[in-house]
Amino acid sequence: MLTRILTQGPIPRVEIARRTGLSQAAVTKAVAPLIEAGFVTDQPSPAAVDEPVESRSELGIGRPVSPLTVVAESISVIGLKVTPTDLIGVITDLRAGIQATRHQPLPDTSAETVIQQLAVLAKEMMDSISEPAGPLIGIGVAVSGDVDSRHGVVRDSPFMGWRDVPVAALLTEELGVPVLVENDVRALTIAEHWFGVGVNADSFAVVTIGSGVGCGLYINGEVVSGAHGVSGELGHLPLAPGDLVCTCGRRGCVETAASSDAILARVRETTGRPELDLSGAIQLAHEGDEHAREAFDRAGEVIGSALAAMVNLVGPELVVIAGEGVADYDLYDQRMRQAFAAHAFGAAGDCRLMLRSHTFDNWARGAAATVIRAYVRSQPPFNR
Amino acid sequence: MLTRILTQGPIPRVEIARRTGLSQAAVTKAVAPLIEAGFVTDQPSPAAVDEPVESRSELGIGRPVSPLTVVAESISVIGLKVTPTDLIGVITDLRAGIQATRHQPLPDTSAETVIQQLAVLAKEMMDSISEPAGPLIGIGVAVSGDVDSRHGVVRDSPFMGWRDVPVAALLTEELGVPVLVENDVRALTIAEHWFGVGVNADSFAVVTIGSGVGCGLYINGEVVSGAHGVSGELGHLPLAPGDLVCTCGRRGCVETAASSDAILARVRETTGRPELDLSGAIQLAHEGDEHAREAFDRAGEVIGSALAAMVNLVGPELVVIAGEGVADYDLYDQRMRQAFAAHAFGAAGDCRLMLRSHTFDNWARGAAATVIRAYVRSQPPFNR
Ligand SMILES: [Zn+2]
Ligand SMILES: [Zn+2]
Repeated sequence: MLTRILTQGPIPRVEIARRTGLSQAAVTKAVAPLIEAGFVTDQPSPAAVDEPVESRSELGIGRPVSPLTVVAESISVIGLKVTPTDLIGVITDLRAGIQATRHQPLPDTSAETVIQQLAVLAKEMMDSISEPAGPLIGIGVAVSGDVDSRHGVVRDSPFMGWRDVPVAALLTEELGVPVLVENDVRALTIAEHWFGVGVNADSFAVVTIGSGVGCGLYINGEVVSGAHGVSGELGHLPLAPGDLVCTCGRRGCVETAASSDAILARVRETTGRPELDLSGAIQLAHEGDEHAREAFDRAGEVIGSALAAMVNLVGPELVVIAGEGVADYDLYDQRMRQAFAAHAFGAAGDCRLMLRSHTFDNWARGAAATVIRAYVRSQPPFNR
Repeated sequence: MLTRILTQGPIPRVEIARRTGLSQAAVTKAVAPLIEAGFVTDQPSPAAVDEPVESRSELGIGRPVSPLTVVAESISVIGLKVTPTDLIGVITDLRAGIQATRHQPLPDTSAETVIQQLAVLAKEMMDSISEPAGPLIGIGVAVSGDVDSRHGVVRDSPFMGWRDVPVAALLTEELGVPVLVENDVRALTIAEHWFGVGVNADSFAVVTIGSGVGCGLYINGEVVSGAHGVSGELGHLPLAPGDLVCTCGRRGCVETAASSDAILARVRETTGRPELDLSGAIQLAHEGDEHAREAFDRAGEVIGSALAAMVNLVGPELVVIAGEGVADYDLYDQRMRQAFAAHAFGAAGDCRLMLRSHTFDNWARGAAATVIRAYVRSQPPFNR
């Protein structure tokens, strides 16, 4: 019931009754403890007082009754994203609305250093939470790679150089609050499921481009987690020429042509300018330098093929394209769409491609969304 | 309830109560009309009389009460598989057990001819159904390609050369019984879900090798159908060299290296023996001819890469390998496993690969299983 109000609210009781097949009395009974606990309200919010009267008088007996809506500020959540150079933290409310943001550079990527810095950042953020924000319920951590979220362990993160790091246990011990760890792209997909496109789509994929290429899938009513904890590894599909070795150690991975590091390496090589950084390479491409354009064309082509491969296999209703690379999407766009059109099979190619502007804060918000989902569903570590 | 007894039976009432959380009285009440209608029985079958007494006296009051089991012979179903050269038909019972089989060669692949021949074959099979087999409830038709099962239309079947053929409507008009049309690999996956590995696996993929390369996915509690009706098109992932054009008109599809036609074309070319047929090519490879072996190696390599791509994206618990090509699996095996191991990402590679012996009758049985599923679920065309 809370899930429905959270993801579909504001929603009148009669509408919940219609959608669930329950009687209106049963809905009222089920909602009462949520109102009691302060998670849900049927009172008009200050902002809603100006709304047309119809929406507030569904019972038609004169007394203005607002639709049910969650009390966003009833709880606080911290979401943290780990990158090789920085930690990004956000504080959100129950609706994954970002209330505060904090970034912290990392001196190195060793698990020891990063766990310690995560604890420092989390403590600062915990101390900063005050009224009217609700009490902190838990902390989510998003890391790229093979993450065993059930046990809170990062099993293999090539970007970080980590193997079998029990992030959740280490941070819970340090901070004394429930900690959830999730693959970063899956966390983003969970946020889209509950607070984004998932509200209106029966199936979708989130494809991220940037320092890695990732993919989250929502199919048959749930985010795909993979029987062995791995799924959505679009960046490691063998769709690129096999001449380069990927960060994961394999050959021919999508990321060997399409990650921002791969693009930069290519531009440095073809322009003969080893001192270039990524923003320099992007600038060159925007200025029309043909070597720089070619590197982005290669990336676009491989990403387009990967999109087609995913769509041919899974057939989602729509694909959300996100990630840091979206800021320079114009450089990938044309070749990506050409390759996608060339390889999408039949009606699978009818799926909508949708661009989502993206900041690093989005990753951290995804981590917060995983905590909200587990909390509302009473899933570990929130078994009630 | 019928679904549970069908897929998990024989099952005692107490066990259904335990698994569903219902009271035993509620289970008894729900089951009564199914027994009344003849779909379910709690009487010992003649074959079960020799079973140990424990299994028949769960209530411990002396009267032997058998677990609930479906009455397989309460209904009959016809499943038909369309190939470019033959029609294959089976009659099954409610448990998808094959009772009879009939094959019919096709003079050509035009939709008109094939529909007419399907009607002839179906009528013969309908006439052959007699006691103790139950009444025919419907006919399933399995066709490769992009099939809109909801509307009963084959939208695009490259193998047959069909576009937008309303198979279900044409056959229903001719035969006067409900007809369901489904993509052949998805039909096979539905059969595995209800009557095969799906009974014990939380997620699985069916990968077929042979005249095409296909894939069916079962994830998050349901067979994946694709928002636009397309999914599992593993044979059209762009994982092969782009020099050959696929039957679908695209370049670089898995099938350009891995379909039996592609293998045969390669063996003919490298051996300089254009008169070879597929069984000749297989024989050559079994005799150790290096050109013939090379063609199967190429196929195995591309299939292994495709398996890895699918597993990296979806992360199923196990993969069932089926299709006509399984008969000569030894020719693909080694290179397929090498390529799979080289490209499977992390724990995704832990999924079990399981070989399923395969005949053309299995495809037709899949078509029957789609009818059984729709019937038991009261889905179209069986809305009750
Ligand atoms: Zn890789
Ligand atoms: Zn193709």
